[in-house]
Amino acid sequence: MSDVVGVIGAGQLARMLTPVAINLGIELRVFAENAGASASLATTVVGDYTDAQQVLDFARGVDVVTFDHEHVPQSVLTLLEAEGIAVRPGSAALRFAQDKLEMRARVAELGLPQPQWVAAADAAAVETFLAAHDGRAVAKTPRGGYDGHGVRVITSAADVADWLTDEALAHVGGALLIEEAIEFRRELSQQVARRPSGEIAAWPLVASEQVDGVCAEVVAPAPDTADAVRDEALHIGVTLAERLDVTGALAVELFETTDGRVLINELAMRPHNSGHWSQDGAVTSQFEQHLRAVLDLPLGSTQPRDAVTVMVNVLGGTPESAHGQALREALAAHPEAKVHWYGKSYRPGRKVGHVNVSGAHPDEVRDAARETAALLGSEVVDRLAR
Amino acid sequence: MSDVVGVIGAGQLARMLTPVAINLGIELRVFAENAGASASLATTVVGDYTDAQQVLDFARGVDVVTFDHEHVPQSVLTLLEAEGIAVRPGSAALRFAQDKLEMRARVAELGLPQPQWVAAADAAAVETFLAAHDGRAVAKTPRGGYDGHGVRVITSAADVADWLTDEALAHVGGALLIEEAIEFRRELSQQVARRPSGEIAAWPLVASEQVDGVCAEVVAPAPDTADAVRDEALHIGVTLAERLDVTGALAVELFETTDGRVLINELAMRPHNSGHWSQDGAVTSQFEQHLRAVLDLPLGSTQPRDAVTVMVNVLGGTPESAHGQALREALAAHPEAKVHWYGKSYRPGRKVGHVNVSGAHPDEVRDAARETAALLGSEVVDRLAR
Repeated sequence: MSDVVGVIGAGQLARMLTPVAINLGIELRVFAENAGASASLATTVVGDYTDAQQVLDFARGVDVVTFDHEHVPQSVLTLLEAEGIAVRPGSAALRFAQDKLEMRARVAELGLPQPQWVAAADAAAVETFLAAHDGRAVAKTPRGGYDGHGVRVITSAADVADWLTDEALAHVGGALLIEEAIEFRRELSQQVARRPSGEIAAWPLVASEQVDGVCAEVVAPAPDTADAVRDEALHIGVTLAERLDVTGALAVELFETTDGRVLINELAMRPHNSGHWSQDGAVTSQFEQHLRAVLDLPLGSTQPRDAVTVMVNVLGGTPESAHGQALREALAAHPEAKVHWYGKSYRPGRKVGHVNVSGAHPDEVRDAARETAALLGSEVVDRLAR
Repeated sequence: MSDVVGVIGAGQLARMLTPVAINLGIELRVFAENAGASASLATTVVGDYTDAQQVLDFARGVDVVTFDHEHVPQSVLTLLEAEGIAVRPGSAALRFAQDKLEMRARVAELGLPQPQWVAAADAAAVETFLAAHDGRAVAKTPRGGYDGHGVRVITSAADVADWLTDEALAHVGGALLIEEAIEFRRELSQQVARRPSGEIAAWPLVASEQVDGVCAEVVAPAPDTADAVRDEALHIGVTLAERLDVTGALAVELFETTDGRVLINELAMRPHNSGHWSQDGAVTSQFEQHLRAVLDLPLGSTQPRDAVTVMVNVLGGTPESAHGQALREALAAHPEAKVHWYGKSYRPGRKVGHVNVSGAHPDEVRDAARETAALLGSEVVDRLAR
């Protein structure tokens, strides 16, 4: 009777879809790589998402297929579509989240602002770009990177010699993406959701802070933001959702430059760490909205529920921090904090949960969220900017 | 690694514990009467909750046992406790939620306000009470009633002749509860939560409206409430939680009389329909708080998130209303509404879900919640008071 949504991947994003599926009476089925993953409660199949037959068997039992990650091969996605299965976002959209070189080329065609870039398949091409950019650039593997993996600041082609071997290049699409190193004031994220019938809803622009390339804190809405910056970010988000035919949640990571420009950094076509604040800070969370969007249901209000919501990731910590004395201390110190655990095992720096705090006073809210995350064992809170 | 909470019963209350268990990284295991119940996602055992051995086997695998309903026999509860299992609320508290005559007697001992009442085991006792109360009273079966079942307004012992047979009385504890029929301005509910180490947190007093004896709407906080009424309700809730040694969530249903008194109507020692507003309207929902309380974790803030939240039940409707055109119309008309489905099959008047709407303007919020519930097929919205 109920709608059935199939999710490929069983990480924390699939896990956090589960509560909203329960609320909305939607049946969620998760295709996991391993038993015991973060979304184990909703896992119905354990298999290999690169195996077309396994994915097809799973997809035939659901009304729509969506994703916890961007790693399902295009060959598998197009096969599902050829079989008439609803895949959201579809393969034609998802390739721009799977391959950063394809994304850069498409963004250029659309005339949207981004850093200068080049596709470089050998050391000479890297050196040519460096010579034109004051000897400094950012090198990225076009495919497979996440959370700072596959990104390096370089001053010489020698810094990416290991990525330029024939074997390494074959794994990432044949060339590296070399980008201008942007002097940015801060990083922003514009999230929108779009459903197949065309409706789009946008959350407020948020500011995010990375530590060692990993998202550590998000402030929603982004404080002290010029109207022109807000308008430009919204224009970018809506244009990309429409022109790339995105269905579901879209996060556009942006640089706000020191001279007031907004440049596209990366895209994610799924719920995204920069939108976790919406679970407790917006009328409709990114997880609820993603399910509504992929089922082509009317979208919910994206209004913030308070003046400010701050999300702080719990990165690292010890196994004891989640359920021992640390949890008691954190909950006792901040009864207003909303704690979200991912049910993952611990290792240094790993994202194992996050904390949301909402309220009227930005400094109080930020301090409460940071203190709670620190009490829960997060290792990077003291490295966040004051 | 994580805490494990075992829930006896798999109705919508157990279902709605599941999302907060996922958020908090708590493992929930549900002992269901049937496969396919509302909380089927977290169901790990299907069995008979009156069978001591089955319940004991389930309980040995969890850190604490709690409940979706009040029907587990005292003999089973006390056996678990004798085995050293943490049962929350405990048998000594739960008997006052299981048996309305025991509750009335205990409330009288505590000197808290309640309607006049008597235990009546035969027609003569009923007639004596009626004669002393203008020929009108409310008869209740002390055990097993819910949602208006087991409650009758009577003017003669003949109205409960079927409840006064030896066989019928044996099922409900040996006597009926006969109460003064209260002239009330409205019904209120005071919810609190208490954890074993003694901490208590109280939500704001709410107003509830019943249709045919079934909760249909809740307004939080209760509008136009005298300070004395609010203080008395809070005193009653806190006193009962402490003196009955309640652990977990406690709902005290109250009458506010036309002459400004507050009288205890019924008790529930679990999440309760009058607290569903808190899922979207309070910093900490009754479901999260119940899990925190039974695990003896520090309690969360019970602050409302908006000036007003209105909860309207979806009672009845058709199977199509949950997932067809009706859902689309409801979500499109009210993008601010939070819809909660219980995954239950439909029959006339059955509680199959509810809607929460929060905001600044009481009339707008109420109208939006009612209209959404009506679009979702609720059959009683037009019978609510304007």
